Amino acid sequence: MLHLQLLLLIFGGKFVGVKLGILGLGTVGTGTVQLLQDTVGRHPLLQEIEIYKVGVRSLDKPREVKLTDAVLTTDLEAIVTDPNVEIVVEVMGGLEPARSLILKAISHGKHVVTANKAAISRFGDEIFTAANQAGVYVMLEAAVGGGIPVIQPLKQSLSVNRIHAVTGIVNGTTNYILTRMQTEGSNFSDVLADAQKFGYAEADPTADVDGFDAADKIAILASLAFGGRINLEQVYCEGIRQVSRTDIAYAEKLGFVIKLLAIARITTSCSPLTPSSPPTLSVRVHPTLVPKTHPLANINGVNNAILTEGEPLGQVMFFGPGAGAGATASAVSSDILNLVATLKTQKTGTLLNPLYACRHQDYCQIAPMEEQVTRFYTRFLTKDQPGVIGKLGTCFGKYGVSLESIVQTGFQEKLAEIVVVTYDVREGDFRQALAEIRTLEAIDSIPSLLRVL
Amino acid sequence: MLHLQLLLLIFGGKFVGVKLGILGLGTVGTGTVQLLQDTVGRHPLLQEIEIYKVGVRSLDKPREVKLTDAVLTTDLEAIVTDPNVEIVVEVMGGLEPARSLILKAISHGKHVVTANKAAISRFGDEIFTAANQAGVYVMLEAAVGGGIPVIQPLKQSLSVNRIHAVTGIVNGTTNYILTRMQTEGSNFSDVLADAQKFGYAEADPTADVDGFDAADKIAILASLAFGGRINLEQVYCEGIRQVSRTDIAYAEKLGFVIKLLAIARITTSCSPLTPSSPPTLSVRVHPTLVPKTHPLANINGVNNAILTEGEPLGQVMFFGPGAGAGATASAVSSDILNLVATLKTQKTGTLLNPLYACRHQDYCQIAPMEEQVTRFYTRFLTKDQPGVIGKLGTCFGKYGVSLESIVQTGFQEKLAEIVVVTYDVREGDFRQALAEIRTLEAIDSIPSLLRVL
Repeated sequence: MLHLQLLLLIFGGKFVGVKLGILGLGTVGTGTVQLLQDTVGRHPLLQEIEIYKVGVRSLDKPREVKLTDAVLTTDLEAIVTDPNVEIVVEVMGGLEPARSLILKAISHGKHVVTANKAAISRFGDEIFTAANQAGVYVMLEAAVGGGIPVIQPLKQSLSVNRIHAVTGIVNGTTNYILTRMQTEGSNFSDVLADAQKFGYAEADPTADVDGFDAADKIAILASLAFGGRINLEQVYCEGIRQVSRTDIAYAEKLGFVIKLLAIARITTSCSPLTPSSPPTLSVRVHPTLVPKTHPLANINGVNNAILTEGEPLGQVMFFGPGAGAGATASAVSSDILNLVATLKTQKTGTLLNPLYACRHQDYCQIAPMEEQVTRFYTRFLTKDQPGVIGKLGTCFGKYGVSLESIVQTGFQEKLAEIVVVTYDVREGDFRQALAEIRTLEAIDSIPSLLRVL
Repeated sequence: MLHLQLLLLIFGGKFVGVKLGILGLGTVGTGTVQLLQDTVGRHPLLQEIEIYKVGVRSLDKPREVKLTDAVLTTDLEAIVTDPNVEIVVEVMGGLEPARSLILKAISHGKHVVTANKAAISRFGDEIFTAANQAGVYVMLEAAVGGGIPVIQPLKQSLSVNRIHAVTGIVNGTTNYILTRMQTEGSNFSDVLADAQKFGYAEADPTADVDGFDAADKIAILASLAFGGRINLEQVYCEGIRQVSRTDIAYAEKLGFVIKLLAIARITTSCSPLTPSSPPTLSVRVHPTLVPKTHPLANINGVNNAILTEGEPLGQVMFFGPGAGAGATASAVSSDILNLVATLKTQKTGTLLNPLYACRHQDYCQIAPMEEQVTRFYTRFLTKDQPGVIGKLGTCFGKYGVSLESIVQTGFQEKLAEIVVVTYDVREGDFRQALAEIRTLEAIDSIPSLLRVL
């Protein structure tokens, strides 16, 4: 209480807090209000924050939090233009009106805290350019990894490193589905139906299971890790619908688990001649065979984890709950706390703290997928003829594809099943080999093609 | 280069960087100088830092880094009092003269970056009191967890949570030894000798294997997580010398691995009447049976990991290299970068940023060990008499100790070996039961007593 008393003294008995305008009172908004209304045992600076306005769609809806009539409003425009509001907290989600409200808040000199990965990954260019011009901060810890502190460490602690790669399990729904397929030997569609029943997957699961949510998040992580903007349309994105329990079982035997990984990796370092221009990257989301000994292999259920590799640090991993009201409220509130602490001590009308503001303006080059170098796992169904393995091996060899293993695993009806794992290969070369293999008379089909970490 | 050009413009062509005085040029000091001298591909703000003075013991020693004669000096006092030096980086280690130099730097208005867990855990009270009075920051990311960003996240992102517990594998040497004992079935003394040969353990391994290094670190983590100072002498500390391969093998069969854990946990929350007074804690270091499914069970070799549990966040874990020149240099440099960014934008002569400065002044109460509630694993050697298990069970029951399992595992020479795992029990009650069991005629000895997470 000392802190509060001191403040009361300073301001002659009148409590002056930092005024928040919160846009949205859904799961995340409610969690954030609950946290801010119950500050005992948390950082004392939270007591200096005032929930001044909360914008909602309906005033009549029953709410889990108590807010006075003066605080609740349906006029969201009025919040982002209100001269009393210092920080706008956008937790409504979706693209519009979120984007317009964020931009209007910025143009009115408000700092912004947002959990909106979809808006930031699409409109980050516009939003950060506006923010830097207006001299305000846009904070987004909650946009990636739920409650895991990863955005702020990337901006601050890790940025002294040359980051080589950021690899994450950043979508809880797909990790939950893959974990259950792995442990129960179930089919994708059965587990998805179950996940929908329990609220772990949306009624329309596209954004999660097709990898779009993970793509939004890796675009954001890559932009922070590598100091350049990312064109979301250039992020390769492949979901988990085609992952079968058969492949999960074979992967298991070969010493792997299958995870939906979001990967951003340097392919060409920045030139010493232009050291401040962003590097060329590989940025992609796809189901991946992860060796069981790899730190990401043990991340199960709805948890998220982000692994960063850099020089001289080596590998650092952050692990925790990737979603949920409490975890996201923790991340949103930590951004608010950071802003309040910074604003208290920052010179007025001056530069933004370069570790909080967005520092990049240029776009990263994204290497095309055929230039990626990775390992592959492929499953073939072939006619039961002698010499098929030899033909496969010859064809791969022709395109410079080295094989780590080639195993006939058994029969599916009358077809022989062959599983191939390659060493690192340029994806374009591998695709060419595969195109030629498809034309072989002995090949019935290629039911599975997955990348290997 | 844009950044630098801008600066050159601002200052009329004269480059004015933030001047560092570095104390010590051992492994960590050399790693830090290497990082700061090679800034391409790292945060551009690093280009604004000047290595102004480096204090060493001998000017003649060959060095891995190039520094001019004007930079190198043996006069460390002159560095901490030099009016040009803004930030003093203490990477010499040890208690004295590190403590005196840190205090003198503070009294001369320098901000301090230190990797010195031993000095901070012992003299933190004195150092932070002086720093708050002088209006300077003392940063210590490198003191715990090597390169893992954990100090800054605890201060910033996680502090909106009510932290319940911080549990860590914070000593790489002991984790390396226990991992090898586990995977190879070797003895402690053999692995220690090997670790010393390979440089993973010191010639005098006491600080590591007896848990003192881990105790320093958990004292620092607890003070940050719970907002109160920790009296290091009250931290219970038990090393790994008595961990036998027999117990590792039994633990394995029961579904556990043995890890040296550093644990800080709230036993009594702060009172709503005095919400700003620190809570009562349990703070301890001891070998612990960790369930194989627990996130800390998979942390192997010289790696470190810190698991934080809080409300509303849940569990968050940070994992990475716990030691080494590169990792520690990354942490030291990130503190320097944070300071440079903050100083650039901070009002002069004002409050310190409350998320960077030390906010606590009071000491946490530490609950005595007999009040701790935990599970136990105990191994007994008993005479081969009928009814021994019954006698053990009766005696435990008398003191309210509930048993999860009691198994006769075999024979050691003519003695029967019995392994007991309890449910949660007050340590004082368990010790009383054990004292009575020791007096039983059938009991030969109690070779092992370990706690279970």
